[in-house]
Amino acid sequence: MKAVGVKDGSNRPELMQIPQPTPSEGEALIRTLRVGVDGTDREVIAGNYGASPRGQDRLILGHEAVGMVEDPNGTTLNSGDVVVPTVRRPPPEGANEYFQRGHPDMAPPEMTLECGINGADGFMCEYFTSQPEYLVEIAAETARRGFLIEPVSVLEKALELALSSRSSFQWSPETILVLGNGSLGLLTVSMLADSADVYCLGRRDRPDPTVDIIERLGAVYVDSRETPVTEMAAGYEPTDLVFEATGYAKHALQCVEALAPTGVGVLLGVPEPTRFEIDGARFHKEMVLNNKALIGSVNAGKQHFDAAVDTIESFPPWFLDAFVTTVAPVESFHDAFATGDDVIKTAVEFDSVWTDWLTQPLRVISSGSTGDTTVRQ
Amino acid sequence: MKAVGVKDGSNRPELMQIPQPTPSEGEALIRTLRVGVDGTDREVIAGNYGASPRGQDRLILGHEAVGMVEDPNGTTLNSGDVVVPTVRRPPPEGANEYFQRGHPDMAPPEMTLECGINGADGFMCEYFTSQPEYLVEIAAETARRGFLIEPVSVLEKALELALSSRSSFQWSPETILVLGNGSLGLLTVSMLADSADVYCLGRRDRPDPTVDIIERLGAVYVDSRETPVTEMAAGYEPTDLVFEATGYAKHALQCVEALAPTGVGVLLGVPEPTRFEIDGARFHKEMVLNNKALIGSVNAGKQHFDAAVDTIESFPPWFLDAFVTTVAPVESFHDAFATGDDVIKTAVEFDSVWTDWLTQPLRVISSGSTGDTTVRQ
Repeated sequence: MKAVGVKDGSNRPELMQIPQPTPSEGEALIRTLRVGVDGTDREVIAGNYGASPRGQDRLILGHEAVGMVEDPNGTTLNSGDVVVPTVRRPPPEGANEYFQRGHPDMAPPEMTLECGINGADGFMCEYFTSQPEYLVEIAAETARRGFLIEPVSVLEKALELALSSRSSFQWSPETILVLGNGSLGLLTVSMLADSADVYCLGRRDRPDPTVDIIERLGAVYVDSRETPVTEMAAGYEPTDLVFEATGYAKHALQCVEALAPTGVGVLLGVPEPTRFEIDGARFHKEMVLNNKALIGSVNAGKQHFDAAVDTIESFPPWFLDAFVTTVAPVESFHDAFATGDDVIKTAVEFDSVWTDWLTQPLRVISSGSTGDTTVRQ
Repeated sequence: MKAVGVKDGSNRPELMQIPQPTPSEGEALIRTLRVGVDGTDREVIAGNYGASPRGQDRLILGHEAVGMVEDPNGTTLNSGDVVVPTVRRPPPEGANEYFQRGHPDMAPPEMTLECGINGADGFMCEYFTSQPEYLVEIAAETARRGFLIEPVSVLEKALELALSSRSSFQWSPETILVLGNGSLGLLTVSMLADSADVYCLGRRDRPDPTVDIIERLGAVYVDSRETPVTEMAAGYEPTDLVFEATGYAKHALQCVEALAPTGVGVLLGVPEPTRFEIDGARFHKEMVLNNKALIGSVNAGKQHFDAAVDTIESFPPWFLDAFVTTVAPVESFHDAFATGDDVIKTAVEFDSVWTDWLTQPLRVISSGSTGDTTVRQ
C-alpha cells in the first residue's frame, strides 16, 4: 500500500510502498481518509525531533488523521465508523502509570511513543490498525475536517490546564493574546474569538490570508515588528490568557509581561536551542506579586479529542474553507508539504468516501448490537 | 499607646507613642497580643518595599498578628474573641473588583493596601481597629501561636493554587523540594513533611538549629553549596512540587529543572534586581514536553487563614518551641528584629492575657445572642 514517510538521514518525505497491515486480536483495520500536516511533521522531516520505530530505518509520517473502520475484527467498533486516532502509544516495555491512569498525554517523552513522530509509525498510509482505546469515534459528517481534531485537541488540553490553574478563585479570561498566526495560532483564534477579545500576533505584511482570517473572526491582528510581546500591555491592553504557539523561547518568558494580574501563559511550542539574557528579577516579581502562572502543555487525552469535535463543529463554514488551503491526493503528497505565505493548513488525502455522503442522502444504519447509529457509504 | 514603626528615610524600627484608635461604626477595637516579624518587615525597614500611609511620614509595622476583641462596638464579634487580622485593605478609592469578589489576595499591588507593609499601618501597637470582615476568629487555645497563622496562610494559598493547576488529571505530590530554610521554608517543611518526602535546601554548616528542625520533621536537608537546585534531580530525585521561598531570581527558572514530569513550581519570594543569561530553550522545552507549571503566589484569602489554623494545630509541640526563638516584650522589641544563625522566628509581645488561660481553668461563657462560645480572661 502507499505510504508517505521519511528515511533516516534524509530530510524530505517520500512515497513508499509498505505491506498493508493485518490487525492483531483486539485491533481494528482502519482505512485512512485524510491526514493533516503541521510544524511537528516539518521538524521530524528536518531531523530536529522524533525517531523511526525501533528496528526500522524510516518513519511513516502523520499524526493528524481521520479514517473509517474497514474491518472491526471482533472489536466493539462497526464497519464504517469514522474515527480519529490519538497519537501516543505505550513504549516497547509496555503500558506505564501514565497509560494506566488514562493520561498518556502527561507522560514524559521517554515514557511514550508518538505515532508519526517518535518511535511509532504514523497514519500517512492507506490503512492502519488500532485498538479501539486509541480511537475517538466521530460523526460521519465531520469526516472531511476530522484531521483538524488532533491539533484542536492540543488546544483543548491547554485551555483546560489554564482554566484549572485559576479554578480556586473567580476568573474567566476576557482578553486573550495568541502568539503566532500559523495554523495552530489560527485554530486558537477560531476557538476563542466568540468568548473573549482576542489579539493574534504575527509578522506578516498585508494583504495576507492569515490576517484576513484573524480579522474576519473578529480578532485583532498585531504586527510584532511594530508591537512586540513586551509592548502588548502598553500598546493594546494586558491580557488574561496568552497562548504561545510559535516555539520562540523568548516568548515563554516575555509573555508574562503581556499578562494581566492573575493571568496565565500557556506554552505550546517547542523551541530551537538558544541562550539569552533576561531581567530575572522582573520575571520572578511579576509572577509572584501579580499571581501569574505559566503552564506547559503537550499532546492531548481522549477527553480533549471529544471536546475538539464540538469546537470544530462550532467553526463557521467559511473558516474551514479559508483555513485549509491544500488537500493533496497521496500521489501528489508533495503539495501538502509546500510552504509559502498562501499556505495555511494542508492535508494528504488517501480516500474520499465522504464525497458520496455529501452528494447523496446519508444512508443511516442503526446497529442492533450496540445501539449506536453508524453511517456506511 | 506604644507602637513599633519605621520613619520615612530611616532604616531602623523605633518605639513610638501614637494615639489609641477609636473604632468607627462597624469596627471593633482589638487588643494586640503578639505580632510576628518576617523577611517582608526587614525589606520594609530597609526601604526596599512598601510605603507609609498617605499623609504620614511613618509606617507602623507588623502584618502577622493575633489579638483579642476589647470592644465589639456593636459588631458581630464578642468581647474576648481571639482574632487574626488579614493583611490587605481597599485602597483610598474604595473596594475594587478583587475585594468585591472576596479575593483581595489576587489584586495587583496598585489595587490594594497592605497593613504594616504598603500604605496602611500594621498591627505592632497596643490596639488596632478592624471591621469583622478582615478578622479571622480562632480558638483561644491557639492565641499564643496565632501570629504564625498569617505566614502559614500564604503557604495554604500557594498549595491550593499548585493543586488546582494539576486538578484536571490524577496527580498528588509524593516528593517536594523546599528552597530556603528561613522561617517560611521551615513552616513549609512542617506543613508537608507528613504527607510527602520533603527536601529542604539551605546553605548552613552543621550544627545548625534549622537543619535540626528539618531532620526532626523527617525531611532531608540539602546543602546547596554541594547540590545546587539544578543538580537536585540527578543528585537526589526529581520532585513533584517545588516551593521557592528564598526570593533568589535564578531559582524561579532553575526550579523547573528540579521538577519531575507534570510537576509544579510555586514562587513565593520577591527577588532583588538582577539580570542573567539562561538557556531559554531548555526552560521552554522542559515546560512544554514535560507538562510542567510555574505558579506565582502572594498574600492569602480568609479561607487560607482558616486552613492555616488547622495546619498549625497539627504541628508537633516541639516544633513551635524550636521554631519560635524569640518573643520580645514591646519594651525590648529590638530583640525581635535581631538576626543570626540562632534566630529563626521572632515576635513582639504586646499582651499575654493567655498566661491566665494556661494556668487556670478556662472560663467559658456562652454568648446568648449568637450561640458562639467565647473565652474571656
